[in-house]
Amino acid sequence: MAEPNPADQIRQDFAPPQVPVEDAARAMEAFALGHHSEARRVVLITSGGTKVPLESRTVRFLDNFSSGRRGAASAEYFLQAGYAVIFLHRHRSLYPYSRRYAATNWLDVLRLQLPGDGAPRVEAEQSRLPGIVQVLQDYSRMKESGRLLSIEFNTLSDYLHLLLAAAQALSRLGSSAMFYLAAAVSDFYIPASEIPEHKIQSSSGPLQITMKMVPKMLSPLVKDWAPKAFVISFKLETDKEILIERARKALATYRHQVVVANILDTLRGHVVVVTGTEETKLSISDEEERSGVEIEEKIIKDLTLRHTQFMEGTAAN
Amino acid sequence: MAEPNPADQIRQDFAPPQVPVEDAARAMEAFALGHHSEARRVVLITSGGTKVPLESRTVRFLDNFSSGRRGAASAEYFLQAGYAVIFLHRHRSLYPYSRRYAATNWLDVLRLQLPGDGAPRVEAEQSRLPGIVQVLQDYSRMKESGRLLSIEFNTLSDYLHLLLAAAQALSRLGSSAMFYLAAAVSDFYIPASEIPEHKIQSSSGPLQITMKMVPKMLSPLVKDWAPKAFVISFKLETDKEILIERARKALATYRHQVVVANILDTLRGHVVVVTGTEETKLSISDEEERSGVEIEEKIIKDLTLRHTQFMEGTAAN
Repeated sequence: MAEPNPADQIRQDFAPPQVPVEDAARAMEAFALGHHSEARRVVLITSGGTKVPLESRTVRFLDNFSSGRRGAASAEYFLQAGYAVIFLHRHRSLYPYSRRYAATNWLDVLRLQLPGDGAPRVEAEQSRLPGIVQVLQDYSRMKESGRLLSIEFNTLSDYLHLLLAAAQALSRLGSSAMFYLAAAVSDFYIPASEIPEHKIQSSSGPLQITMKMVPKMLSPLVKDWAPKAFVISFKLETDKEILIERARKALATYRHQVVVANILDTLRGHVVVVTGTEETKLSISDEEERSGVEIEEKIIKDLTLRHTQFMEGTAAN
Repeated sequence: MAEPNPADQIRQDFAPPQVPVEDAARAMEAFALGHHSEARRVVLITSGGTKVPLESRTVRFLDNFSSGRRGAASAEYFLQAGYAVIFLHRHRSLYPYSRRYAATNWLDVLRLQLPGDGAPRVEAEQSRLPGIVQVLQDYSRMKESGRLLSIEFNTLSDYLHLLLAAAQALSRLGSSAMFYLAAAVSDFYIPASEIPEHKIQSSSGPLQITMKMVPKMLSPLVKDWAPKAFVISFKLETDKEILIERARKALATYRHQVVVANILDTLRGHVVVVTGTEETKLSISDEEERSGVEIEEKIIKDLTLRHTQFMEGTAAN
């Protein structure tokens, strides 16, 4: 029997997406081709965790821990490096620029000014929003540049459909397209045909959930969907003993270019960039941490260089 | 064999809480007794969904759909009605007052003002924040009043430990304490002894999860922890055929005062307040919806009246 085609499997075996995939596909294609025609590189960043509903009218779902911080921070550094960015992220996960104030209750920050003359003004207390002037300037510059396209997913099915659409949108860009797959995608799902419609009743006793493994999208992405692109996946483990071995295994299996490997406990301070031939450790020193340097700045600097070499290598072939 | 004591079961069978429960317990007790001594009624509102980790160094977890909108809106109306409110809510779920701007990207709303003379100002564009002047006034009045105590949970274990602590804090208030249990609490959990430490490896094949039923806290809450309090639980179903029957069954089983029953699809427009003797339907008309009337206003008006009658009834006994 032939291997199932992963694109067909997504369409047949997963619950229908809950987001307008076709609109997103058109927007991504226009965005990618537009920037490509201006000789700009385009990166697809995936970010945040996926939701796997246990019921079709969903009350319960399986989720993956991910604030989306890495993806949101990375988007800023890719924009700085001149890339056009498709930011495919979980609804309400962290967002470029605004991520710095994610823990802020804005009502604590806003002050009502009631001048004797004229209408009330609402002003933000800057001392409670570190760096806000710079951030607002960067944010409005980014919006004017038109180099960020934001697309949202909620469920695993949304994500898979959108990833397929994104790969198609970037397929005509050859080696100048980059995939930066930082989303925390579920490894498991419940086939659409086995999901109950209504809320599972607790009176029916203990809950047994059996989940199938999600088809690995990296494989068709690298082989068929965007074979010339520069592809980076992430490996998050909690056990550092097995991390590099698993990163190497992923590279050998999927034959893409880079795995960024990290341990849950230290993911903001240390990563290892693993390629077919090298392992490069990147870290943030205490000194750098104090002065606000982020590891994503180093990751993106490293990867954009590798992307340049990759493009030159493929051009020379 | 004797029934296990639910309080012991929480302490023994669940993973340790990830929040400082003892600090919260002290804060809730001081808050409750302080307001009680000033003859104020106290309501504990629980709000938002609980997270059930599948790994002890958590990457994956089971979650319940809940934005926390109902709990956050209800808190505002209880405060308006003169109650002191303990708002026990899921970290990052909706919060009283700020809930109105939950979908706002604040960076889109803030404007940098650069006057020729003096420092830059950051001003909010009021047209993009409907009602902001009133909301800021209400919010600051609430903070000054000291009638809102905010406590956060993440996991099911956090929630159960905090609920027990809250029940103890309110137990000395007799019938003037109300429990408004609007959180979407998981019915299922994995015993601490069965949770793997590290991330489940997807290479081990399909995932089998077996979850035990969470002990029903309503039972010891009503019988032992706060036997004189006025207790309201919520029933959310997706199937309207079984809703009222389930609400009645809950009342018969737990012997508390009220079930607020609702259907997922219409929960913002219709609820049924079910007591031992009555069913009262509350709805929002199209007209009311247009003018911004919220169903929580009607629910809280109904419940505060019932609470008064309950207090008078218990005083007469």
